Amino acid sequence: MSKAQGKPAPLRVGVVLFPGFQSMDVFGPMDCFNILSQSHNVTLALLSSTLEPVTTKPPTCANAIGQSVVPTHTFSEAPSLDLLLVPGGPGTRGSSLAIADAISYIRDVYPQLKYLVTVCTGSGLAARAGVLDGKRATTNKMDWADITALTANVDWVHRARWVVDGNVWSSSGVSAGIDLILAWIEEVYGSEVAREISNTIEYTRHEDSSHDPFAELSGI
Amino acid sequence: MSKAQGKPAPLRVGVVLFPGFQSMDVFGPMDCFNILSQSHNVTLALLSSTLEPVTTKPPTCANAIGQSVVPTHTFSEAPSLDLLLVPGGPGTRGSSLAIADAISYIRDVYPQLKYLVTVCTGSGLAARAGVLDGKRATTNKMDWADITALTANVDWVHRARWVVDGNVWSSSGVSAGIDLILAWIEEVYGSEVAREISNTIEYTRHEDSSHDPFAELSGI
Repeated sequence: MSKAQGKPAPLRVGVVLFPGFQSMDVFGPMDCFNILSQSHNVTLALLSSTLEPVTTKPPTCANAIGQSVVPTHTFSEAPSLDLLLVPGGPGTRGSSLAIADAISYIRDVYPQLKYLVTVCTGSGLAARAGVLDGKRATTNKMDWADITALTANVDWVHRARWVVDGNVWSSSGVSAGIDLILAWIEEVYGSEVAREISNTIEYTRHEDSSHDPFAELSGI
Repeated sequence: MSKAQGKPAPLRVGVVLFPGFQSMDVFGPMDCFNILSQSHNVTLALLSSTLEPVTTKPPTCANAIGQSVVPTHTFSEAPSLDLLLVPGGPGTRGSSLAIADAISYIRDVYPQLKYLVTVCTGSGLAARAGVLDGKRATTNKMDWADITALTANVDWVHRARWVVDGNVWSSSGVSAGIDLILAWIEEVYGSEVAREISNTIEYTRHEDSSHDPFAELSGI
């Protein structure tokens, strides 16, 4: 993202995929990056344990539908990244091999990242990896009790659309990831680029990170 | 969706995929259907010309990033559907084989559908298939001039988040598909189901179909 000889270095984005990831957690922010990549230098790695397509279908809900996305790299062959996005979803629960792999990868790669972005219960995976220790972060409000019970080492922020602490950006549930990523794009690429993208997707942003009508609904 | 012997018949959803579809056009509504399917009977067919993964990468933008989704059926082997969702995106332009196949499929299947849903410039594919003739519909506001120029047989509605005419539900650009599908779920499954889903994705709905701040921005 820095400029060298007039040509900006790429933004190298990675996304953690596992069975039962929440589709909008990934594809809300991704659509913003897809549009950004049409005018700016962006590379993408879709990361998982294997190169087999990864379904959004929850592992514990046999009747549910899902969509399958093709990874580009395994965790063990991941390229260097600037930004890693960790989605949430029903698949974050438990300790399947895929989830254990994802948590190990997050723990190992975090020191090399410029930015870690979590959406929804993706913050639970980051918390289990230990990389949120001592940091402020937020998460999905419906799953608040379960996620915040994972560790006492995180300063969980209840009323927040998203939270920034150092290089960690964490959002509340699902669609909040869109607001987080547009705020991130505004910070890194400027307000005009963020506005062009939100207008392209005809999205009325929540620009106040403390805007959170869902905090009350969760009854905490 | 009707009840027979106490067990509700499935909602059979299909989605048209082609290279350069807009990811949020598909995955915004799909995440709502994914959540719906965890408590209601829903089946899904992801349809394309072949069973090869379909990328969101625009065919005309070599440097852009994209994500690839795995179809479940070809157009020629599509199962019977209740609802077909047609996304938009940069890939809708032109007359590639994939787009010609999609338009033929939309034309052929429309008489058997209970509902046709278009998001963003997906309405352009439906218009080219002739199935919007004589109907009111809307589309993406940034591409308004190009889409409405495709045919004079459609009553294009400029200021609209979404439009319903008979069994055709058409939305404005990208994120408007989420509001459309939540309104559709409210109509078919009731307001409580729609509210549960919008709360699950922490999405503040636009419930007024005429709400459209992007109509002015397009300068028409």
